[in-house]
This record gives sequence, structure tokens and C-alpha cells, in this order.
Amino acid sequence: MPVDRIREVRITPVAFHDPPLLNAVGVHQPFALRAVVEVVTEDGVTGLGESYGDAVHLDRLRRAAEELRGVDPWHVQEIARRVRLLPETGTGGDGTSGMVRSATADRVLSPFEVACLDIQGRTVGRPVTDLLGGAVRDRVEFSAYLFYKWAGHPGAEEDRWGAARDSDEIVAQARRIVDEFGFNALKLKGGVVPPQEEVAAIRALRAAFPDSPLRIDPNAAWSVETSVKVGTELAGVLEYLEDPTAGIAGMARVARAVPMPLATNMCVVAFDHVRPAVEADAVRVILSDHHFWGGLGRSRALASTCETFGLGLSMHSNSHLGISLAAMTHLAAATPNLTYACDTHWPWKEQDEDVIVPGALRFEAGAVAVPTAPGLGVELDRDALARLHEQYLTCGITSRDDTAYYRGHHPGFDPTPPRW
Amino acid sequence: MPVDRIREVRITPVAFHDPPLLNAVGVHQPFALRAVVEVVTEDGVTGLGESYGDAVHLDRLRRAAEELRGVDPWHVQEIARRVRLLPETGTGGDGTSGMVRSATADRVLSPFEVACLDIQGRTVGRPVTDLLGGAVRDRVEFSAYLFYKWAGHPGAEEDRWGAARDSDEIVAQARRIVDEFGFNALKLKGGVVPPQEEVAAIRALRAAFPDSPLRIDPNAAWSVETSVKVGTELAGVLEYLEDPTAGIAGMARVARAVPMPLATNMCVVAFDHVRPAVEADAVRVILSDHHFWGGLGRSRALASTCETFGLGLSMHSNSHLGISLAAMTHLAAATPNLTYACDTHWPWKEQDEDVIVPGALRFEAGAVAVPTAPGLGVELDRDALARLHEQYLTCGITSRDDTAYYRGHHPGFDPTPPRW
Repeated sequence: MPVDRIREVRITPVAFHDPPLLNAVGVHQPFALRAVVEVVTEDGVTGLGESYGDAVHLDRLRRAAEELRGVDPWHVQEIARRVRLLPETGTGGDGTSGMVRSATADRVLSPFEVACLDIQGRTVGRPVTDLLGGAVRDRVEFSAYLFYKWAGHPGAEEDRWGAARDSDEIVAQARRIVDEFGFNALKLKGGVVPPQEEVAAIRALRAAFPDSPLRIDPNAAWSVETSVKVGTELAGVLEYLEDPTAGIAGMARVARAVPMPLATNMCVVAFDHVRPAVEADAVRVILSDHHFWGGLGRSRALASTCETFGLGLSMHSNSHLGISLAAMTHLAAATPNLTYACDTHWPWKEQDEDVIVPGALRFEAGAVAVPTAPGLGVELDRDALARLHEQYLTCGITSRDDTAYYRGHHPGFDPTPPRW
Repeated sequence: MPVDRIREVRITPVAFHDPPLLNAVGVHQPFALRAVVEVVTEDGVTGLGESYGDAVHLDRLRRAAEELRGVDPWHVQEIARRVRLLPETGTGGDGTSGMVRSATADRVLSPFEVACLDIQGRTVGRPVTDLLGGAVRDRVEFSAYLFYKWAGHPGAEEDRWGAARDSDEIVAQARRIVDEFGFNALKLKGGVVPPQEEVAAIRALRAAFPDSPLRIDPNAAWSVETSVKVGTELAGVLEYLEDPTAGIAGMARVARAVPMPLATNMCVVAFDHVRPAVEADAVRVILSDHHFWGGLGRSRALASTCETFGLGLSMHSNSHLGISLAAMTHLAAATPNLTYACDTHWPWKEQDEDVIVPGALRFEAGAVAVPTAPGLGVELDRDALARLHEQYLTCGITSRDDTAYYRGHHPGFDPTPPRW
């Protein structure tokens, strides 16, 4: 049969509302940015991908898109080769507010690879999980992602979640989010208030949710000494301690001194980081993320390497929309050793604000049922895409900058780690 | 569309003629055994796989086959799960005459996984390379596999290759095999005659083929001291030194003392061996083999791990037929970092003796063009299969035993390593 090649690639930046969630480097701006990628074949099959929406990344995606015309969407390795040949321009742009630095080429490749898998699945009438060896679970568990937060964006009304400033308000937030989505595992974004307050919040969560796996992620805001102190205090309480301090060497020092596994999506964010981390025995769990590990296929390669080296596997998330949720769900469903509940920012977006037709993805008991329709199993809502693109054009944000936004209200703020 | 499930699995042991090729543990028997695996779907699509034909392995394949009915052939991970649940029985049976011990489950899984990929490809009209991300090369280079050998099997006439007892006869063998197949890289199976004679053979090959990459593989017949001596003498001559001595610890000692990379298909033959080998820095090249690494998908996972840890990747072979050659070619074509010429025993079989319809696979300039027809791109020749099965039934061999066969003619032979 004749090969159906890529005819066109469309990249549409979108913005969606994001609450003022606090982290070690600042606070989420009123809008989160994403890029929606559509890869269209000569026969008119469209595959979807989603990636970061920062200007520098958008520019890279657009330059990569120029190179993809005429490629067979099954030849993902040829797409990877072309992406790797693009000249490197600048740094950053990964939508993570300077908190991680993954390999640029893999970041650029990811949404195109996902879109090609979507095309493949649609073409052969198979869900993406089948292209990855078949689902090993029919639902994927996610964790509640708890944040210290402002009551609302400055100048706006209080949002529906309200403020979370202390342990009581974190527990209240957890109760609401668990009631609404059914999560079991709970993750607290830390590095925001002094470590002793965050330890108190974890203890309060343990008291309120005695059976839930608990995690805290201060995004490397702590010194080695502070990390060891917190880790020691929380012995027996945490499922894992995520990125307490910066760098492989620092993580390795913490790892030797605390009883729980260390996890990371900061010091191991590209294939080049794996060997040094293993050699230093710096982490026991890698939080994969197909957006920065080069797509679903390369994320599964990472998963296999983790299994081979006795490392656990979890999943990181940034603020994202439904295309990414679908991709994350397919990947997790087809990855046997992804045994931890995955991160997701999903509860924080407005539930009716997305670029996909509603209904394909639903949280029940903290999990998403794996789509069984062909491809990713989600459809683009063109009107919604147009609205969110218009919102991108008018929102005034072209690059994520949590620090600048926070400084606008706390001029003296200095996020340089270690903050404690 | 309705799922086309596995209806039937047929496993047919076959025997094909094999010349008296010498190695560290004995000599090849007059027939090599293989198992031909056919996986048939409810819609009548048949996928092909090929594996070892030893009795104990055949028994495992048959027990696994019982578990596969009703499984979706895209759900390779479900097949892997079922294979892993089978009770372990005995050891050996991997058709390698006691020289390697890979993980049993992966050995059993491999031909079923290959057959499922063949089904997938046939179903969607795509070559297997496309299911692996697309070919990154359109031809796969193989190496000449040179052997010391007897002139013919005892009691039979001299075979068409004749004897190879010394450097001159090895060079003559190389010339014939290179003339016929066009190989560039040359691999000498060593561990057969005293190491100084094998060093002389390598030097003679270097003189006769000044531009060819050279390898020697004594199958761990040498002590660490002998390995270091040989490796030091052959500085600048070898592309890599393959399994000079036994075990990860021994290989690591050799690796520290010789200038060339060490390669292995003996001390790293399963995923459990990778971490210890990396930690000991025992090898620089892993010779993958989809027959013992669990099929093409898991071999690609190994390839990715090798890339992540800076290890080179080559490919091992046992005596094999055309189904395996097709699978090896697809795998190598779709594995970017498989940059060494692959091993193959292909020249040693009678070229008109196979289970596939002739013509799909052809050596030109030492390489095989990657099939572009759907699936593996080879078709079963049922008459040929019946003939080779009949040969299996009458040949009197049910398990490979190079040592017993050699001892039948040299009663005092003791292959216990190190022989030198």
C-alpha cells in the first residue's frame, strides 16, 4: 500500500487559566502556556501532540516542523534524526520556570512523536497502548498535587480553591481535591515556606490520610543539611522524597543519610544524566516525563533502563491539557514498572477549559481509564482551540516566569537555592 | 474493528546440515536444530518466529504456546507476562552448548514476540522495521565468521569448505567466504588451538585483509593472564576482543590491562547482568541477540540502555535459518547505535537448505538489504519445513552437545575453562 506521508504540521500556542500556585522559584502566572501540535498526513489523518508553549520552544517546534514534510509518520527515528540536526538556539523554554533542563532535541521531538503515534493508531485502528506492546493496566492512577497558594491572583477575586498558607489549609485543600478526584497518593509542592512548616504539613496530611502514600517536592530549595534533617524527621512517613536538594552530588549525599528513597525530575532529566546518577547512587526513583524524554518510545526506553538498574519509575507533570493527559495515560498504561501514581496538574485547570472534545478522559477513584479508541483516543475541539489561542494572543504572557511574577508582589524575593 | 486474536501456535523442530566447526567446548554436530514458530490468528494471519531446537527448550516453547490462545498479537507484554508465569524447568536448552545462560523467560518469549511483530506488520502492511520506529539504514552489514574446522564430519566426505587447521587455512577460508559474501569485518572463533597460533592467525588475516575490522572470540577459554597477553600482543589489530575469559570479574581485570574494547555475549546475556558489568566496567561492547534478550522490542531496550551507558552494541548469532536472519536484519536496521557488523553463521549452512521461500534475503557486499514487504518479509516454504522436520526426526540429535561429539573422536577432551 502507498505510504501516507506527513503533509503539514500545525503548531498553535494556547493559554489556559492557572491559579496562583506557589513553588520554590515563585508563583504560577494567571495563564499557563502550551503548544498544540497537529501533524497531518497526505491522506488527511491528523495526529495530536502537546508541548510547552514558551516562545523559545515554540520557535524550535516551528523550525522542526519545517523539516517533517514528506516523512513517513511511522519513521519516528527519521524525525528524531532531523530534529537533532537543527541548530541549537538559546536555552530554556521548557516551560518549567528554570527548574529543569532536559535535552533540547528530546523536548522538541516529543510532541511530534506523540502525534505520529496518534496517526499510527488512527490508521490501524489501535489505541496507542497497543503500539507500545499493549496496556498492562486498564486504569492509570494519579496523585493529588497539593500546593501552597495565594487566595487568588492579585487584582482578581479569590479563586475556587482559596488560599493554602499552612498545614490546616493544605489538609483542607487535600480533602477537597481527594473528594473531587478520588486520589490516594498525595504530593505536596514544597520549598515555599520554612521546612519545619512543610514537615508539619506532611504530618498533618499523614494524620488526616493515614493510608495515603505521601511525597514532598521542594524543587531543590534545601541545602544538603536541611534535606537530611527533613528526611530524618519524616522517616516512615514519605513514600519518596523528591528533589530535596540540587544536583547529583548533593542528592547522593542526602541519599546516604535519609531512610526513604529519593526521587528526581531535576537532576536526571536527560539520558546523559542517568549514568552519573547511577554511579553516585543519587536517586532511587526517576520521575519520567515524555515531554522532556523525547516522547513515549524513548520514555519506555528510560523505563527499561530503570528496571535494568533497579530504579523505580514515577511520572512528572507540568500544567497541561487533555492531549498530554491522554499521552501520559497511554504511556503509563503500557509501562509495567511505572508503579507509582503519576503526577498531574489536572485538578488546577478549569475543568471545562481544554482543547479536546470533553468526555474522553475522566478521573474516577484517582485514576483515568485508558482510552481504547484508536490513537490517543481524544479529538481536537477546533472552537476550543481557537478560543485558547485567542487567549494566548491576549494574555500578555509569552514565556513562563514564576519568579518575575512573584517579584512583582514581593520585590525582594530571591529564589537562589538553597533557600533553606 | 474487532480484535484478531491468536488462534493457534505451531512449533516445528527442524534440523539442518552443519559443518564440523570447532570451538572452545568441542565441535558442531552434523545437524543444527531450530524450532520454527508459527503464530496463527483467528483471521488466518500467520506470523513466523525461530528459536533454539533443543528438547528442553522445545518443551518450554510448547508449554508457553498453550498459554497464548486468545491473546491479541499486539499485546506482547501480556504474552511476556504469561511466559514469566510458567514454572521453571531445568536448565540449558538454549542451543549454545553451555556457553551462555540467558534468562529463560526471555529466551522463550523471543520467537513469539517476533511472530507477533510479523503478524502486526502483515496486518497493517508495514515491514517490522516500521513497527520499531523505522529503518535507519537500508542494508545491514554482517561479518565473516571464521572457524577452525575439520575437513568434514567423521565418516563423511570432506565438505565444500575443507579443513582449517592453521593460519594459512584460516586465511584461505576467509578469502573464500569474503569472495562469496562480500564481508568486510572478519571474526575468528578462537579458543580452539593454543593462543599463540590464534594470534598468528589474526596477524595473517591482518596481512591478507589490511582494511578489515578483526575480532577474535575464544569463548572464555583463556585465563585472565593469557587474555591480557593476547590482548597486549594484538594492540592496534583488533576491533574488539570478545569474551577472552569467563565472568564479569575476570573480564574487568582483562579490560583494565588491554588496549582494545572487550565485547561479550557470555558474561552479559540477560538484563540482570548489565548493572554488575557496568559497575565493574567489564565490557565496552555488548553483543545483543534477540533470541536470548526477549525479542526485538526488548533488544531495542537493551540498545537504548547501552547508548545511555556509553556501551557499544554488536550482534551475536547461533546457527540459524532465514526467519532469524530476517528478524536480525529488521532489528539491526531499526537500531541506530548498532554500528558494528553483526555476526551470522549464515555462510555455513547449505544455501539451499532453509524453511523460507528463497530470494527474500541476499548477501551483497557483506550486507543484507532490509526487507520492505509487510512483516518480516519472508514466507514459510511448507515443503521445505516438512523436509527439515523429517530430518530432525531422523538425524538422531535432540540437543546440541558439541563436547560429547568432540569427545567421541578425542576421548580425553576436557573443555573446562580456562583451557589456556
